[in-house]
Formats: sequence, C-alpha cells, structure tokens
Amino acid sequence: MPEVKLEEVRRFMEDSLKAVGAPESEAKAHADLLMHADTVGHYSHGLNRLEFYINDCQSKACVPTAKPEILKESGATAWVDGHNALGATVGNFCMDLAIKKAKECGVGWVCARRSNHFGMAGYWALQAEREGLIGLAFTNSSPIMVPTRSKQRALGTNPIAMAAPATDGDKLVVDMATTTVAMGKIEVQIHKEEPLPAGWALGPDGKPTTDAKAAFQAGRLMPLGGEEKTSGYKGYALSAMVELFCSGLSGSNSTHNIRGWELDSNQGPPDLGQCFAAINPECFAPGFGDRAADCLNTWRNLEPVDPALPVLAPGDKEHHIGEATLAKGTVNYPQRQLEAMETMAKRIGVKPIQVV
Amino acid sequence: MPEVKLEEVRRFMEDSLKAVGAPESEAKAHADLLMHADTVGHYSHGLNRLEFYINDCQSKACVPTAKPEILKESGATAWVDGHNALGATVGNFCMDLAIKKAKECGVGWVCARRSNHFGMAGYWALQAEREGLIGLAFTNSSPIMVPTRSKQRALGTNPIAMAAPATDGDKLVVDMATTTVAMGKIEVQIHKEEPLPAGWALGPDGKPTTDAKAAFQAGRLMPLGGEEKTSGYKGYALSAMVELFCSGLSGSNSTHNIRGWELDSNQGPPDLGQCFAAINPECFAPGFGDRAADCLNTWRNLEPVDPALPVLAPGDKEHHIGEATLAKGTVNYPQRQLEAMETMAKRIGVKPIQVV
Repeated sequence: MPEVKLEEVRRFMEDSLKAVGAPESEAKAHADLLMHADTVGHYSHGLNRLEFYINDCQSKACVPTAKPEILKESGATAWVDGHNALGATVGNFCMDLAIKKAKECGVGWVCARRSNHFGMAGYWALQAEREGLIGLAFTNSSPIMVPTRSKQRALGTNPIAMAAPATDGDKLVVDMATTTVAMGKIEVQIHKEEPLPAGWALGPDGKPTTDAKAAFQAGRLMPLGGEEKTSGYKGYALSAMVELFCSGLSGSNSTHNIRGWELDSNQGPPDLGQCFAAINPECFAPGFGDRAADCLNTWRNLEPVDPALPVLAPGDKEHHIGEATLAKGTVNYPQRQLEAMETMAKRIGVKPIQVV
Repeated sequence: MPEVKLEEVRRFMEDSLKAVGAPESEAKAHADLLMHADTVGHYSHGLNRLEFYINDCQSKACVPTAKPEILKESGATAWVDGHNALGATVGNFCMDLAIKKAKECGVGWVCARRSNHFGMAGYWALQAEREGLIGLAFTNSSPIMVPTRSKQRALGTNPIAMAAPATDGDKLVVDMATTTVAMGKIEVQIHKEEPLPAGWALGPDGKPTTDAKAAFQAGRLMPLGGEEKTSGYKGYALSAMVELFCSGLSGSNSTHNIRGWELDSNQGPPDLGQCFAAINPECFAPGFGDRAADCLNTWRNLEPVDPALPVLAPGDKEHHIGEATLAKGTVNYPQRQLEAMETMAKRIGVKPIQVV
C-alpha cells in the first residue's frame, strides 16, 4: 500500500477542511482528531472519514465557522448548543469545560446537542486523562444496531469511551462501540473473502447471518454479546444508556430520528447528542495512579492461553500501534482510498496527497 | 416449589440480621435490598445470599453496627470509608450523599472503600431514579472473570447499573454484570442438565467449555462478548473501567486481591470498592422524561422477529416480574433452599420461615 508522511496527511486534511470554510484553528483541531485515529490504527475513523466531513460542510449540514454556546450551567454541569459546528469544535469546547469543572468541584458533566460526528470517542476521553483526570465520552449516531428480538434498527454504535491516568504515563483506555463490531470490520471480512463470526450481524429478516456481503448490505449490527442467549441484551442496554446520556440529556435527535449512515449529507444536520465528562481522582483516595498501574500490570502479566498472544490491558493495542506509527512517521493507505482523495482534492481545489 | 408470603420473607431476613448484631434500621435496610432481588426475579441476589451476609456478620468480616464516614468531600464528590458495614448501610449512606450533591451542583459521585456486597447494583441506581435523577452504581467483587487471552481470573463480575426516570413513572434500568452471565446462570444449566451456550465460560485450561459442571467447578467466566473474535475484550474493558471507578478511586482492594467467591467468611473483610453517582437531568435540556419515554416506547414497538417475543426496553423484564410478584404477594423458593434456611434459623436462634 502507498505510504504517506504523517505531516502530509495532516496538511491535506487541514487544507481540505479550510477549502470548505473551516477557520484555521478548527481545521487543525479536526485534522488532529482524524490523525489520532490513523495513528493508532483505527483507519475507519481517520482519512477514511474526511470526505464525509467535507460533504457535510459543503451541504451546510455542518457549519465549520459555528461556535458552541453554553445554554445552562451549574457547578458540575453544562448544557451546550453545538450549533452544528465540526465535531472537534464541539468536542474541544465541551471537554475543556468538563475538565475545568472537574478541577473546580470534582466532576464535570457536559452534554451537547446539535453536534456532528466527533471521530474516535477515545480521543475525547484522553483529553481529560492528559490533565490527570478520568475522562468519559459518549455519542449517539445513525441507527444501525438492532435491539434484541427486533427486526428493525433503532440505536447506533453508541460508543463508550473512558480513559484513566496511571503512574509513569501508563493509562487505561476503553473505547468501544456497544455493537459487537463496527461496519468497518464487516468490510474487512468482505475484502478477505471470509465469513463473519456468529454474533456480529443480522440479515434483513432480523436473523443472524455470517455472509459478510449480505450483512454489509443489510446494515444491521448486533449489540455487544450477540444473540439473546449470549446476553446481547446487555450490549443493547449499554447502547440505551448512552442514548439517554446523549440525546436524553442534550435534547438532540434520538438515534431513531437521525439520518441514515454516512455520506448522506443532503438530509440536513444530523443533530447528534454527545456527552463529555471528567472526574478528578484527587477528590478520592490518594494513590489512584499507583493502583491503576498495579491493575494494568497485573492484567498484562496474567498467564496467557497462547504464549504468542500475551494478555493486553484495554488500550494497549492502540498505544503500541500509535508508538510504531509515530516512530515510522508514515501511514499506509489503500490505493483506492488515495484515488478517491485525489478526486476530492480536485473537486474542492486543494493540492492532492503526495505519497512517499 | 413452596410459597412464602413476602412479608414473611422480609420478617425472616430482618430477624436473622438482627440475630447477628444488626441494628433494626440496618436489618430493615438490608432486607429491603434482598427483597428487591427476589421481587424482580433475581433470586440469586435475594434470600439466596442471606446466609453469606449472616456468616460475614458472625465472622466479623462485616460489622453490622458500623457507620460509614466521609473522608474527603468536594462540591460534586465524596470519598467514604464504609468501615465494613453491611452493603445496604454503605449503599444508603453513599447514594443519599450522591443524590444531595446532584441536587446541589448537578452531579454527585461518591466512592466507598471497605464496603461489603451490596446486592443488586440496580437497586442503588433506582434510589436516584426515584428522586428524578439518573442513578449509576458500580462495584468490584471477587475474582471470577478471565480477561481476554488469559488463563487466570483477575476481575469480578463488576456490574454496571444505570437507572433513568421517564414520563408517567416509566424508566430505563440497566443492571448487568460485565461477564456474559453470572455463576447463577451456570447453576441453572446444571439443574436443567443442559450444556452452556458458547461464550459463557472457560475450563481450567482457559479454553471455552460448554460443560456446565466443568464450568461451575472451574469458576472462570468470560467477559461480555465471549471470545476475542466476538469482541470479548469489550466486556473485559468494561470490567476494567468499573474496577478503576471502584478500587481505583476508593483505595479499596483491587479485585485481584479480593478473597474468593462467597461463603468464605474467615478471610477477613473483603474491602470492596463501590461507586455511586447521580446526575440531575434538570441541569440539561428540558423534557428529559419525555425523550426517555419516547425512546423506551420506540424500542418496545419495534417489529419483533418472533411475534411471541416482543422487544423489551432494558429493565422491562424485571419490572413485569416485580409487578406480578407484588400482586401475588408471595415468592416461591426451592425446598432445598428453605431447608438450608431452617438449619440457619436454628443455628442463629430465629423463627424459621413459615410457608403458606
């Protein structure tokens, strides 16, 4: 696969966002969000999503010059109107506020309505972690998950992210869709020409399927846990919890009212609901970082079933990939993806991506 | 199965707890916690657990006269020492405090060290829900879950509970172990002489097993999601999150240092960590209850795959069983369980349970 320098990817993202009206600061912020995903190996949420944001800016579904606004505030909380700004604009505004509140009174819990897709949820939780706080981030999304027993979609991948600081720069990072997998993993199975494991997806009849193409076309993801007998209702319950944290508290669209999945920019703003929280460990027992590090290292040192596959702490995989990417200084993208970016570059008048 | 009046079960629980030193108020509180489980059909966490608490009081692992104490406090937070009091004593102290703080500054986040088992986590989240707040409750527990790729246990069932109020008394209730199932469900399969579904449990070699008896003896539960290919690492990540909310913030034992599973009262206090939170929807967009009700009803009205199995909102099953139990006024217990209670009654000198 062609290789591109990290700074060139970032340059292209920033140029593209500026070309459709984003101020420099917001183009930089949003590019940073997307770069995070490509750096830690979640390629679905990086450059892969850029055109989606560009289209939303062009259709005015997203207003890249908009500034979020606090509508209501108390000691530990804020309700924010994102005014359909870029996801990174809303995310930075809300998480900065949650961090400030957590430092002042122990917890900050900030919810935004009228937001756009905010990339990897873990990126936001990590903003708080870098300040020595526990960070949490949640978002609703387009309807793609089928609740247990249902034939129809009603909830999103509705992710849960949590990051917590441990001693010596170590950290716990939880960043997970409440579906068993995201659609990107089904696409990977199509490319590999392999069937899906049971518990990933349903066909249009609401019955489990292992046919990757049929699953992709049906677009019906199963909740984490899979079928009812393997407790799929728990993944559904987690998604429901995220829904009420997001649309419930913020007054945004509920997932069942959100426009369909991606690249569908002409249906107006998605009006997503998002929730950002920070908790200050200093307000509790001294030594949080040491206890967190002890847990992480205990888990890593558990005896593995297969010595070639050591036990990881949640977030380790992304951390290792992130370090390797930064050391290499480049990312590899499929030729087809770079061609699509070249077409987009011409369309919006920016310099195409230069491969190494 | 023999039938017992609800008030008789409650009488027996209170008498038993008082017989081992619990003051009347705490015996009532703890009985209420256990009655909730038997009322909503989670029999594993009701009368079934009474002897475990009685033994812990007798061995002094639990101190039923102890009073929790606030060690540190900020606007939205409190750090509490449970002083090894009964789970209900610590739970009521902490959740009352979280509710008060949520009413004052939007969020209350309270963590306790040196607590004991606090029954169904959902019971605590519902205390906040009854006050018009979103309630959250988490606890760590004895090591029984095997992290992805590991052969060894290191985390507990570490449950997540969340309850949120909706219009007209409706509510969302999430109350789930972060393992695929709890041990009680494996016991049920043994009694039914049926194999386990894949994704529930591992054998002593760390490999998946469907043999219910072998699984029960091995005591190695899989995280929600099951194997790695069906995203079991997400259940592991959720359990890790709960661990840092509980032992991380409170300074209690981490799960990997907690004594083994149940009825093992002679190893001293378990020193569990627990976390209770309340969030005030009034601090965010008006109309939370209506939006929550709209979500709940939308999910319930989704077209089901099997018309005989309607789609439920999370918590509906327990709600329906609870209403039926209260209407009937009785609970049925297995003969063997009542015989065990009769033996215990003689041992601690209380009037045995009278069946109808």
